[in-house]
Amino acid sequence: MIILGIDPGYAIVGFGIIEKTKNQTKVIDYGVIETDKSLKMSVRLNIIYDGIEYLINKYKPDCFAIEELFYHTNQKTVINVAMARGVILLSAIKNLGEQKLFEYTPLQIKQALTGNGRAEKQQVQYMVKAILNLAKTPKPDDAADALAVALCHSQTNTILADTVIK
Amino acid sequence: MIILGIDPGYAIVGFGIIEKTKNQTKVIDYGVIETDKSLKMSVRLNIIYDGIEYLINKYKPDCFAIEELFYHTNQKTVINVAMARGVILLSAIKNLGEQKLFEYTPLQIKQALTGNGRAEKQQVQYMVKAILNLAKTPKPDDAADALAVALCHSQTNTILADTVIK
Repeated sequence: MIILGIDPGYAIVGFGIIEKTKNQTKVIDYGVIETDKSLKMSVRLNIIYDGIEYLINKYKPDCFAIEELFYHTNQKTVINVAMARGVILLSAIKNLGEQKLFEYTPLQIKQALTGNGRAEKQQVQYMVKAILNLAKTPKPDDAADALAVALCHSQTNTILADTVIK
Repeated sequence: MIILGIDPGYAIVGFGIIEKTKNQTKVIDYGVIETDKSLKMSVRLNIIYDGIEYLINKYKPDCFAIEELFYHTNQKTVINVAMARGVILLSAIKNLGEQKLFEYTPLQIKQALTGNGRAEKQQVQYMVKAILNLAKTPKPDDAADALAVALCHSQTNTILADTVIK
């Protein structure tokens, strides 16, 4: 089973692709989609939509997992991140269909990876490295966070699938 | 010149289409795209994207005008409206191109229609009815608000086009 995990954003969208087999979970690819701040927001959204479409067409994931968005103190940021998250969801549903789309809260992700819903970012990243048998923590952080979302899905979907789909 | 105005939302997206000629500005159509609250957000976003695409293909507007989003006190609402606004912008840029896309603040819209940036909603709707020579105020409010966005563009773009594009 191939899982594409996404850490949403508008300047940087993290992505992580993992493959889960009976015996192991391994990384296929990870990285970021970046959009230049000199561009209009609509153009940045278009780049993000097309970037997600490219990843889906290239890796043909069986599941698409994305982090839920919660309120930031910066209102401008939350509106822009939410607009980006909207086009990411749209690209997923148009290119994969709604049945393959899963959303997880930050708490669910931390809980799945570390056993503690209040774990620090560093602990989550340490577990990404450990579970995927990597020599070092993936960089940038957005890519590591996206791998964490994918791992959260791989570790929880067998028992939680019905409850986490929304 | 045909102008498509949009009042963004996720449960209800208002739309208004007007035609501006040398002598008059008349209404072509108005209404709403509605999404049922029983549906997943990703499915609702997909309906909104396709609805905007349908309107663009049907009316072939020369310009697309949309209201800017500002912070609401309800955090959940602002995130959902922003996600919807993201896919509306995406549908506009994919189906019309960025040159035809214009964004206006609520203040700019009120100012353009009533001469007062702090005008009440009722005053704006009264002016929509008056300018378009309608027998009564368009309903629902979301459709009237969308016509106001379109009228704002029609009244300001000749002098302000370069400053309002963003």
